[in-house]
Amino acid sequence: MIGSMVEGGSRELHERSPLALTMGEPAGIGAEISLKAWKELRQSGLAFFLVGSADHIEDTARALQAEVPIATISAPEEALSVFSHALPVFNISVAAETRSGHPSPKTAGSVIESIRTCVEFVRAGRAAALVTNPIQKAVLQEAGFAHPGHTEFLQELAGPGYRSTMMLVGHDLRVVPVTVHQSLRSAISQLTTEMIVCRALDTASALASDFGISAPRLAIAGLNPHAGEGGMMGDEEANIIEPAIRELRRAGFAAAGPMSPDTMFTSRARSGYDAAICMYHDQALIPLKTLDMDGGVNVTLGLPFVRTSPDHGTALDIAGRGIAEPGSLVAALRLAAEIAGRRGKEPR
Amino acid sequence: MIGSMVEGGSRELHERSPLALTMGEPAGIGAEISLKAWKELRQSGLAFFLVGSADHIEDTARALQAEVPIATISAPEEALSVFSHALPVFNISVAAETRSGHPSPKTAGSVIESIRTCVEFVRAGRAAALVTNPIQKAVLQEAGFAHPGHTEFLQELAGPGYRSTMMLVGHDLRVVPVTVHQSLRSAISQLTTEMIVCRALDTASALASDFGISAPRLAIAGLNPHAGEGGMMGDEEANIIEPAIRELRRAGFAAAGPMSPDTMFTSRARSGYDAAICMYHDQALIPLKTLDMDGGVNVTLGLPFVRTSPDHGTALDIAGRGIAEPGSLVAALRLAAEIAGRRGKEPR
Repeated sequence: MIGSMVEGGSRELHERSPLALTMGEPAGIGAEISLKAWKELRQSGLAFFLVGSADHIEDTARALQAEVPIATISAPEEALSVFSHALPVFNISVAAETRSGHPSPKTAGSVIESIRTCVEFVRAGRAAALVTNPIQKAVLQEAGFAHPGHTEFLQELAGPGYRSTMMLVGHDLRVVPVTVHQSLRSAISQLTTEMIVCRALDTASALASDFGISAPRLAIAGLNPHAGEGGMMGDEEANIIEPAIRELRRAGFAAAGPMSPDTMFTSRARSGYDAAICMYHDQALIPLKTLDMDGGVNVTLGLPFVRTSPDHGTALDIAGRGIAEPGSLVAALRLAAEIAGRRGKEPR
Repeated sequence: MIGSMVEGGSRELHERSPLALTMGEPAGIGAEISLKAWKELRQSGLAFFLVGSADHIEDTARALQAEVPIATISAPEEALSVFSHALPVFNISVAAETRSGHPSPKTAGSVIESIRTCVEFVRAGRAAALVTNPIQKAVLQEAGFAHPGHTEFLQELAGPGYRSTMMLVGHDLRVVPVTVHQSLRSAISQLTTEMIVCRALDTASALASDFGISAPRLAIAGLNPHAGEGGMMGDEEANIIEPAIRELRRAGFAAAGPMSPDTMFTSRARSGYDAAICMYHDQALIPLKTLDMDGGVNVTLGLPFVRTSPDHGTALDIAGRGIAEPGSLVAALRLAAEIAGRRGKEPR
């Protein structure tokens, strides 16, 4: 499904380096969907290993009667030979007991250690890409984590000089929000031409390097109803968005818009562009999730390593019940492998 | 499709009074989709008549080789016997020649006369409901039309004491925007608890009277990403939306929310409510149109007569080419007949 979004002759899925998967919030559905994803992918040619508490994962498998054998590994490379018959786990201990649905700041240290460890393996070329299970931001922050979320933490781990961009990828839709995690009111007042141009350029560059689309077609959304209807319902299109489109066109990019937000996500409209540049979080996320609840993938563009994640949260309300859908994590693992292959950075 | 949205034992479609359909902008796709809708509905038991220029409609039928016989009628009642073998047209002359794709203020008078005439027939009980083809607002306003759109004009024709509300109805989703045709910035600054409560009450009332849902479940959207995430991304949820939800609950309504806007329109989420009360135009229209481009219907709640319309515009860019889809108009005609039957106002 996601595979069809990577165009052109994609290289075969990489078989040398496995993908590194973080544990995410242990009180959430991370272990459960990881077990289910292993079942779905064990014969796929793709291999991943989970960095987390082997005890917690075994407990989860037992509680859910998942019948997934766990194999503790001491190096990422072991995952390749293990993967077809067991879920490889690179063990890190979790300081406290975990109760499904009840996250505790006591486990925050191991959640962060899992991310750090995975990033080190990827940066050392011992894992092909990073895939992250959902975290519970508020609990991490309570424990002293100074970042608003994964993306900002990963940007710091990447070091200076990188500008990350969030892209959401669904079955036949890619969206990039220009403003992200802030109130709608502040998103509108902070929106600038430069921000739109930067996001669009980063997106175009990633579509070429990561998705094999050398001449990407960008759809630039309006902000207001009917894209302002010629100024009758807002002036941000004329003052902020149209100048960005002109600048992109001058630079040689195919940039259409400002498009009326309510009609730009129909199936007919979607077939006319490779990515939609959206002005605010929900303008991007509403169509993506409405179309593709269980298969959407979050991709962080612009980092020196490949990173994807499912586009849902920790789902504390259903944790431990065995009903979590692994579709988005499976899609995230597949897409990470494809992008890693396409970036041509392996075997290292 | 729309039929399934009217619950309970719906009465049979009314056979005494036909539906009155306006001509809409003659340079747009109104005549074309009306011809196509007749073909689709001629054996359905439902009957409608078009109020417009018989010449224009015959010209359109000829140009598109639509093979639809036209029958000029002099009273709405004649439509019932005519409908199975010809499209009934109540003729009004159009002052100027019409060129597809090129609307002119010269035809504005007849566009308005068509609406007025249809409303008169409906109010006199000679038509069961009003269905409107899309109009080109800017051209009407150039010709002196003092209303921002259909809804405001219809509210004036209805007289004082009515408060109209726009609902969009798709296959399995009904949405009601609290703020509508204004910039996003002004929508946020003008949003009040009272507006949300009013829209929700009007919606609940219409769900009972027009859709046969006596204990409607309302989903109240948040405004900000993740519904503000506990105040971290905006305070409108705590200050404006939550008080509205409390008030609705005190009044005995099932009102859930504030819901995270990006996850409230997935198929799982949609099955949990009868209508979504949305804070701004695109929060309602993006999911509706993304899911249901060709079958969405606009219903005006709160008028003393039934009014529906397709949820698309005049489509000037494809007018005259024969490729316009009649699905939304067909759905609008069917839903108008069902609501009229349910309101129990006929036969008068």
